Amino acid sequence: VEHFDFSDHSHRRYNPLTDSWVLVSPHRAKRPWLGQQETPSKSDAPEYDPKCYLCPGNERATGNSTPNYESTFFFQNDYPAVKTVQPSLPANDKTKDTLKNRLFQTESVRGNCFVICFSPKHNLTLPLMKQQDIVKVVSTWQTLYNQLAKEAVEEKKPYKYLQIFENKGTAMGCSNLHPHGQAWCLESVPNEVAKEFKSFDKYKHEHNADLLGDYVALEMQEKSRIVFENDTFLVVVPYWAVWPFETMVVSKKKIPSIVKLTDSEKQDLAQIIKVLTTKYDNLFQTSFPYSMGIHQAPLNATQEELDRSWLHLHFYPPLLRSATVRKFLVGFELLGEPQRDLTAEQAAERLRNLDGNTHYTENL
Amino acid sequence: VEHFDFSDHSHRRYNPLTDSWVLVSPHRAKRPWLGQQETPSKSDAPEYDPKCYLCPGNERATGNSTPNYESTFFFQNDYPAVKTVQPSLPANDKTKDTLKNRLFQTESVRGNCFVICFSPKHNLTLPLMKQQDIVKVVSTWQTLYNQLAKEAVEEKKPYKYLQIFENKGTAMGCSNLHPHGQAWCLESVPNEVAKEFKSFDKYKHEHNADLLGDYVALEMQEKSRIVFENDTFLVVVPYWAVWPFETMVVSKKKIPSIVKLTDSEKQDLAQIIKVLTTKYDNLFQTSFPYSMGIHQAPLNATQEELDRSWLHLHFYPPLLRSATVRKFLVGFELLGEPQRDLTAEQAAERLRNLDGNTHYTENL
Ligand SMILES: O=P(O)(O)O[C@H]1O[C@H](CO)[C@@H](O)[C@H](O)[C@H]1O
Ligand SMILES: O=P(O)(O)O[C@H]1O[C@H](CO)[C@@H](O)[C@H](O)[C@H]1O
Repeated sequence: VEHFDFSDHSHRRYNPLTDSWVLVSPHRAKRPWLGQQETPSKSDAPEYDPKCYLCPGNERATGNSTPNYESTFFFQNDYPAVKTVQPSLPANDKTKDTLKNRLFQTESVRGNCFVICFSPKHNLTLPLMKQQDIVKVVSTWQTLYNQLAKEAVEEKKPYKYLQIFENKGTAMGCSNLHPHGQAWCLESVPNEVAKEFKSFDKYKHEHNADLLGDYVALEMQEKSRIVFENDTFLVVVPYWAVWPFETMVVSKKKIPSIVKLTDSEKQDLAQIIKVLTTKYDNLFQTSFPYSMGIHQAPLNATQEELDRSWLHLHFYPPLLRSATVRKFLVGFELLGEPQRDLTAEQAAERLRNLDGNTHYTENL
Repeated sequence: VEHFDFSDHSHRRYNPLTDSWVLVSPHRAKRPWLGQQETPSKSDAPEYDPKCYLCPGNERATGNSTPNYESTFFFQNDYPAVKTVQPSLPANDKTKDTLKNRLFQTESVRGNCFVICFSPKHNLTLPLMKQQDIVKVVSTWQTLYNQLAKEAVEEKKPYKYLQIFENKGTAMGCSNLHPHGQAWCLESVPNEVAKEFKSFDKYKHEHNADLLGDYVALEMQEKSRIVFENDTFLVVVPYWAVWPFETMVVSKKKIPSIVKLTDSEKQDLAQIIKVLTTKYDNLFQTSFPYSMGIHQAPLNATQEELDRSWLHLHFYPPLLRSATVRKFLVGFELLGEPQRDLTAEQAAERLRNLDGNTHYTENL
């Protein structure tokens, strides 16, 4: 009899972080592709682009100028999705059982949005930066986190959760190739983070343990999904990954947020980012697009919130087969269930075996 | 004092169908766009393309031939994501409380995948088809639904839920422009549908009413999100829409699935599809990309499943500003919370005011 083969037979895997399922159809990668092709990234960008509003000394759309910064630089987004001040939502008697109260639930959201330049050099990306310069990016995230936490207390700013993220590459909606990320700070915990916190609480309640702590232990035992590790962090393709080469960077012991990292743990995070993004670029010999973000404790966390939080980063890269062929999460994925074309173990093996020290452009 | 203005101030809206939130930042549409541009659809495609495997009489990758069909045609996908037969997953003692049992939950999935050609003419799309020909598409969906339900009973095929969908346009991962949709039939209820069923049950339990029945009543009273309606269906931009011009087509009274439509209700569904997709094309004068799909009762539904189900279609179109500028649901959306740049009411007003009878190409 033929046996069930995870790398050939369709199955669903459960994501305990978000309480959802993903359909894995590993044989499907064999179909031909006649659809949209991405434009591979060009590497002929100059170190300074006079038309780039993130390059030092240039003017931005709003008339503000970007200063002559030398390592990193953050500023308030000129088109923030949320603002610190706005009129309050009219109070409505939510206790009345009306159709509107049942079906049109609404909350006002205030907050702030920031852009974080990783480097003054227009043509760099995280994998092309020195580890020491990535450490400065981590320090900048810490500075922003601490500053907003302080303003929330001292100036009563409406800041509760800081979502730090990077959209890299045009395929991930990035509108400027200058190396930069963003940080949106809301007075509410955003949906995806709230789902994780709910799952962490449920797990702790049922098993008296940390979900991500147990998960790290299990992945270190199984090894098949590990991409890279150092003393502080593990990089895995999660068992329930959706994007073809999705990874999670997770701290080996409980660290609630980036501001709790020691100096050597910061070095370790910078190393992880450098190695992982180098492997990504080497996979299809292209500047690999992704969205990545940091999940951690809310600002000014209570003891309960600190106990619940476990620092981790998600990387969601769209490419599937090559520098030009991406995975589309569309029809069945949007209406039914996310579907992937290779197993987490297959993706992890490819990433694990790639060079994480030398960027492919160094050999060109 | 300034008042809270839904079309200017940031707020979050709750989606009771999927138990999740969306961030609405209506002022953000003002920012300039320097990112990726979509290729607008070309209309110079021939009625018959000798290289298209969906055109009548042509050969497909697997060596099968597409017959000389005259209206619609469906066949098993040559690269199905699920198969009717595969070895069973090794039984594992799930009662033991091991880390693996807690964190690596897995199910085998069997099923089948079909491609449905809407027309033999390569250069048509739903809005360019006659209403009578769209009726034939609806009939084909019904035939497939009934046939699979029958095979599940008589041949013990692993078919439980039929997800009918269409990916239209290269921006939505469509790999062939020939007018066609797909239908994936799984032995399990996919994640998004399961979430809705859970919400329907919860709502019925709490309010002794149908969530979508109450929602239809409320939208017909408020009117501001209605795009179009006829005797059987309402088209609204849902209160909690994520995609810029997302719509939901929902039956006004409870109809559990497409196979329960009377002849005149079928005509009404075809009219809705024709008018809505014509409005979509007219919005940016382009062949408007989207993913759409039908949510309805499972095959061979029990009475309980029929009671719970309420026929509706979701349309998820990516375009935001023009034929070439789409909304990217990326960084903050993937890591934090979906974010939209105009309100549901603003989107509905634009769609409502567009011509739904004459396609823009008729005036060129
Ligand atoms: O089946 P197709 O059209 O080749 O593929 C398309 O639709 C599928 C179902 O939504 C997706 O999984 C693919 O990523 C997409 O490219
Ligand atoms: O802020 P940017 O880079 O202009 O915009 C990009 O990131 C945002 C946050 O993920 C998204 O809402 C936009 O759709 C995307 O294009």
